[in-house]
Amino acid sequence: MESKNYQRLSPRDLRAAIRTGEFTAPTVGCCLGFTQINVVILPARYAFDFLLYCQRNPKPCPLLEAMEAGIYEPRFLAPGADIRTDVPRYRVFRGEGVEEREDILDLWRDDLVTFLLGCSFTFEWAMMQAHIPVRNIEEDKIVPVFVTNQPCQPAGVFKGNLVVSMRPIPPHQVSRAVQVTGRYPGVHGSPVHIGAPEALGIADINRPDYGSPVTIHPGEIPVFWGCGVTPQDAIMKLKPELAITHAPGHMFVTDRREEEFALA
Amino acid sequence: MESKNYQRLSPRDLRAAIRTGEFTAPTVGCCLGFTQINVVILPARYAFDFLLYCQRNPKPCPLLEAMEAGIYEPRFLAPGADIRTDVPRYRVFRGEGVEEREDILDLWRDDLVTFLLGCSFTFEWAMMQAHIPVRNIEEDKIVPVFVTNQPCQPAGVFKGNLVVSMRPIPPHQVSRAVQVTGRYPGVHGSPVHIGAPEALGIADINRPDYGSPVTIHPGEIPVFWGCGVTPQDAIMKLKPELAITHAPGHMFVTDRREEEFALA
Repeated sequence: MESKNYQRLSPRDLRAAIRTGEFTAPTVGCCLGFTQINVVILPARYAFDFLLYCQRNPKPCPLLEAMEAGIYEPRFLAPGADIRTDVPRYRVFRGEGVEEREDILDLWRDDLVTFLLGCSFTFEWAMMQAHIPVRNIEEDKIVPVFVTNQPCQPAGVFKGNLVVSMRPIPPHQVSRAVQVTGRYPGVHGSPVHIGAPEALGIADINRPDYGSPVTIHPGEIPVFWGCGVTPQDAIMKLKPELAITHAPGHMFVTDRREEEFALA
Repeated sequence: MESKNYQRLSPRDLRAAIRTGEFTAPTVGCCLGFTQINVVILPARYAFDFLLYCQRNPKPCPLLEAMEAGIYEPRFLAPGADIRTDVPRYRVFRGEGVEEREDILDLWRDDLVTFLLGCSFTFEWAMMQAHIPVRNIEEDKIVPVFVTNQPCQPAGVFKGNLVVSMRPIPPHQVSRAVQVTGRYPGVHGSPVHIGAPEALGIADINRPDYGSPVTIHPGEIPVFWGCGVTPQDAIMKLKPELAITHAPGHMFVTDRREEEFALA
């Protein structure tokens, strides 16, 4: 099923198609202009520590909504939606094991706490509006992502390293890229690092840990933003008895427009 | 004891004087240029809900640090400090009862969670740097504070109304006041409301619920910012078996300079 047919769909209609199983694809390009987000669901015993991890590491872990235990309707980002059915594909972690599913209805428990985190799709949209190149979009690739050698601030049982996404930017547009993305502190905000990949422990900029390499034109500067894989990395290190996330690229599409997350 | 003698003191030296009982006064004017903050300490059973309340209401409840249960050293804001002794005056709430104390060493328990929230002293400093009048400072008064008719987003057991502080600003400087304070989203950020106090349910702008009235010159606009009394109001509504805060005006002085909280 082509995502392109879903560009003009409303988030509500897309979620309905996901719920019935009609749509199970990655959400890139769906419902243009509406914010897509990362999903993390954890048992309540981990909830305070995870919320604290987000609070201490806001650039890689920009928390947009957290829900009380047992609640599956994201009241702020998508009233009426159901987080158990409205993500096209889930990943379920149990200790060392991982499986993928299209809903989590039978896994739901009253002690599960849902966290919804901002995603770089929002600031990429803002960069495109400002005519700053977004190479991964130009080349239709998944953005290159690197696990750095920089530890995040630990919180309770959670610890891990900063994970970053990289976009090459022409030198005369780097300053503008900082300003444009800095308007969106709720969705990773301004870059965490500009140039000098070796200072992050990145040995080869053309060999990302996740995603695909993209072309870096001569003279372009590699610019690094906090990445939503950061909290997932901390969860995978902890190996809790249960954790549920979206599957990569299969995001939760909210009713909120990108512009609503601009600094006011 | 005159706070003025403490203007040039380092935060570390001021906290040492507080710890020995030498300094027990309000902290206004102490350690100029360093961030002072609001303290809330709650039993762990309320910690997730309170963190969520801050996350959902960031303008009135700008959380700068939260600590794991039992930890009394604010590692980010003031390494080496002790939150049990380094606040000049505490308020201890037990259900309906309230008492004030100069330390809380004998009340400390391993299940207590400390939250440190931004305070308007920081953005007032930024306004003064920008030559925007801060009437409560000009007139040496406690800023007028109003409990509005606007409910905050509830979270778990916490609910309450938005509480605001008011500063009258000349019309040609209102826009600048928005921009200057908007650089500090971690300490209340930009105003929540400009003009029209009646829309917040404020019947008489000269009769604040807390603090003192200040002079409003003809033509000046009342400008309202989220106020740190907001989370305290939610706690007082809940009446938990134990809650500890700083006493009004007796803030915790951190090692972080005001400018560190400007948007980067």
